[in-house]
Amino acid sequence: MERKKICVIGVGLIGGSLAIQLHEKKLSSKLIGVDVNEEHARKALELELVDEISTLENAIDESEVIVMAMPVDTMVAMLPLILDKIDRQIVLDLGSTKSQLADAVKSHPKRGRYVATHPMWGTEYSGPQSAVRGAFENKAVIICNAEESDADALEWVKHMYNKIGMHQLEMEAKAHDLHAAYVSHISHITSFALANTVLEKEKEENAIFELASAGFESTVRLAKSSPAMWVPIFMQNKENVLDVLKEHIAQLSRFKESIEKEDHEYLIRLISNANKIRRIIK
Amino acid sequence: MERKKICVIGVGLIGGSLAIQLHEKKLSSKLIGVDVNEEHARKALELELVDEISTLENAIDESEVIVMAMPVDTMVAMLPLILDKIDRQIVLDLGSTKSQLADAVKSHPKRGRYVATHPMWGTEYSGPQSAVRGAFENKAVIICNAEESDADALEWVKHMYNKIGMHQLEMEAKAHDLHAAYVSHISHITSFALANTVLEKEKEENAIFELASAGFESTVRLAKSSPAMWVPIFMQNKENVLDVLKEHIAQLSRFKESIEKEDHEYLIRLISNANKIRRIIK
Repeated sequence: MERKKICVIGVGLIGGSLAIQLHEKKLSSKLIGVDVNEEHARKALELELVDEISTLENAIDESEVIVMAMPVDTMVAMLPLILDKIDRQIVLDLGSTKSQLADAVKSHPKRGRYVATHPMWGTEYSGPQSAVRGAFENKAVIICNAEESDADALEWVKHMYNKIGMHQLEMEAKAHDLHAAYVSHISHITSFALANTVLEKEKEENAIFELASAGFESTVRLAKSSPAMWVPIFMQNKENVLDVLKEHIAQLSRFKESIEKEDHEYLIRLISNANKIRRIIK
Repeated sequence: MERKKICVIGVGLIGGSLAIQLHEKKLSSKLIGVDVNEEHARKALELELVDEISTLENAIDESEVIVMAMPVDTMVAMLPLILDKIDRQIVLDLGSTKSQLADAVKSHPKRGRYVATHPMWGTEYSGPQSAVRGAFENKAVIICNAEESDADALEWVKHMYNKIGMHQLEMEAKAHDLHAAYVSHISHITSFALANTVLEKEKEENAIFELASAGFESTVRLAKSSPAMWVPIFMQNKENVLDVLKEHIAQLSRFKESIEKEDHEYLIRLISNANKIRRIIK
């Protein structure tokens, strides 16, 4: 397919990493960056993640494809306004929640121009300086409510993810948000809470620093993730996140109870059950 | 220093990985393996982790250094019996808890021959087939109650860890167990509980498998760890583990409360505080 003029709104970790791929996989003839954070915009240009920085209005006018990579609360506010402005352009988002976005434009006359996607990739860092070469490759991308998108828009977005090397799944927005709560959102909450636990209880930080094992690092690294990205995700996926979080607290309470009672058998059962995760992650 | 005849009791992940290093760093003139699990013993020999397999009695008689790498409950039971049998040999352990071991031999006439150590390295796998070449390097090892060990025994053990490339810290056994609860034991409980949460709530396992992101994998990978190793650790470090676990449940409850009330400000504060973990893990 022909290369397209593409604008990326939000040139941080996710938008910046996608911009690198759009260029490297020869999907873009021109890349325009938009960011409310002027420092990020400047940095994205300096790092050559994009060819130029522009205003939202100009970027939309000039682009054939509009990629939304802002925090999900901003997306919900802006997507209807972007659809108001466009004609035949393609709009896609890279957000971690999908239901509120889908609902926000369900009856919009331009709904067909929008493709809802969630590429399952990220790191605990943020900003354009955290953008990574080769990101997204060999990971899954979920395309939501595909039947509501126009055939040509859907086709191009699939072509894009195919070139980037992502395997694609289709799912309804509501199912997506439920699954995302289990396999992504809860991990972030656990990690944030674990960091707060350790920071609260352990005042001799040098000891932590010296002792921190690979195990600790891997469970706590997501705690470096930014509140600007994650607060809106937890808010939009409130019901699912609360369901999983309650279950998680109940599971932790079982460990507490079995240790308090020195109930070896129960503790062995709990851990043996947890070991079944080997079926899921290799 | 001269190479020594060394026996390793417990030739699984930890003992097997150490055996590889003892040979590669030219610390051993002969390596004798002992394991109650005959399959593990056979496998360790087949993999050439050790030069021969022997009984506990024979191995102790023949060795100048005795390394204990069994689960920590077995260690507490066996350490006094091993000290009963030895004369000038050096005994060290690689266990994850230290207070009960230290207490068990505090007044033993051969206490000086024993050096209590905890090399901060491990993986979520177990058994001799999981032993890793180059393990322990550039990690920390904690030596506990060093003043209770004979100078020559301590000197050799430090020499050994030095050759293996571990940086050494000294600490009292009680302080060790407190810190270990924060930087290692709680991470395992969180991970086990997270695995159980996901397995409980998510019945469509194919969806998890497809969607599981790197973030999920990193928070849940420790859930593959073995109950044989971890149940005794949690039991021996019961008070510290329960303290940290209660704090962790309290921290998770704050996330639950802030999401329930849609209290953005509180949630931002919780996450911003968690971000301070950046000071500790780079």
